[in-house]
Amino acid sequence: VNATSSALAGCFLFEGIPVSEIDGLLDKIPYTVKQYHRGAIIAFQGDQYDHLMIILSGEADAHIQSGNGKTIRIESLKSPDPIASGILFADNNYLPVTVTAVTDVSLIVFRRETVLFLCRQYREFLFAYMRDMGDKIVFLADKIRHLTFNTIRQKTAAFLLDQRIRQRLDSITLPYTKEVIAELFGVTRPALSRVFGDFVEEGVIKQEGRLVHIIQPEKLKETLAENGE
Amino acid sequence: VNATSSALAGCFLFEGIPVSEIDGLLDKIPYTVKQYHRGAIIAFQGDQYDHLMIILSGEADAHIQSGNGKTIRIESLKSPDPIASGILFADNNYLPVTVTAVTDVSLIVFRRETVLFLCRQYREFLFAYMRDMGDKIVFLADKIRHLTFNTIRQKTAAFLLDQRIRQRLDSITLPYTKEVIAELFGVTRPALSRVFGDFVEEGVIKQEGRLVHIIQPEKLKETLAENGE
Repeated sequence: VNATSSALAGCFLFEGIPVSEIDGLLDKIPYTVKQYHRGAIIAFQGDQYDHLMIILSGEADAHIQSGNGKTIRIESLKSPDPIASGILFADNNYLPVTVTAVTDVSLIVFRRETVLFLCRQYREFLFAYMRDMGDKIVFLADKIRHLTFNTIRQKTAAFLLDQRIRQRLDSITLPYTKEVIAELFGVTRPALSRVFGDFVEEGVIKQEGRLVHIIQPEKLKETLAENGE
Repeated sequence: VNATSSALAGCFLFEGIPVSEIDGLLDKIPYTVKQYHRGAIIAFQGDQYDHLMIILSGEADAHIQSGNGKTIRIESLKSPDPIASGILFADNNYLPVTVTAVTDVSLIVFRRETVLFLCRQYREFLFAYMRDMGDKIVFLADKIRHLTFNTIRQKTAAFLLDQRIRQRLDSITLPYTKEVIAELFGVTRPALSRVFGDFVEEGVIKQEGRLVHIIQPEKLKETLAENGE
């Protein structure tokens, strides 16, 4: 088993495929391994993304240049993350970010046709790819709904009421960690915790880890109505 | 060839698979056909969506109940649209909408496992499914970027500058129709056309159908800066 196979085996797309099988697979399918020095640009915003890149070793940064020229860091990528797997099959498959090597980086690159082959050959790979895309769609759609609320307090109230409808219970399980919920709202984790703390103190909710008991849903609805929402 | 096969053949997921083949396929794979009377509820917001539904005939409406009790119509669905195909494989696969029959409706229902089987059996089906999910991800991510701009004028300027970076040309091709761009911005089509018309009149852009020549990009950047963006 070589280093490439064992790095790939750690990637969620290859979960469930034995590393020995991945090893044999790499003898049969076409791929390229690319090396980048620290600081090198791996891909430019605006590139057509028609090959799947997976980081075998090292770390990279994704950042965007916004319309008015500012550079904004979007996310950190590290081995064994795939890069932009969600847009590989889109019609408008332009890379929305520029990807830069933060350390020396080694990447494996598969043609789109090879990814389709892997989907058809391995149910686990197909399911992992589809689940990841589905999760991205749900996350982005949730984010859009929450962007329409102004304050963190309103976003949190809307989120809890939404989960109460989805889960049909007054005791709901948070579907994401607090880190991810903060990301969903576009706020910091401490600011989010403060709002949860306030709701607990006011007797609106009770919390046990990821389980949240909604004691006074009407107070959450009142929060939404503040400021004319 | 029966009516079910010919309805399915019109669905984008089955594009490229001959209708005779679909006919034979339906003898081999498990599925259910369901009938709903006009006004009936097909699925509730909050249901776990673990079967793929495709409308064979009739029309349906998707609407949501927001946290504070309002009902908002989200989209119209008609034969041969699939319902919520993007969330079928998500971990949090709760249906974000309630689906109601507007006319008498007939649906075909496939288990998730059967959808995976179709993906592995037919490259066309797999590619169409992946492309549709990818398009949704790109559309939602674009929508989030444009929600941060306030006015239609700013949204349009940001969109044009963004496409200019992606396409690396001063003459860009609009990647969506005006209807879809209006939907992306959450505005009406006439309001969007007015803004394009203004930019043309001010000499900022020239337009020939879906081709837009950006004559004065700096004016678009100034538009973004209005109101402190």
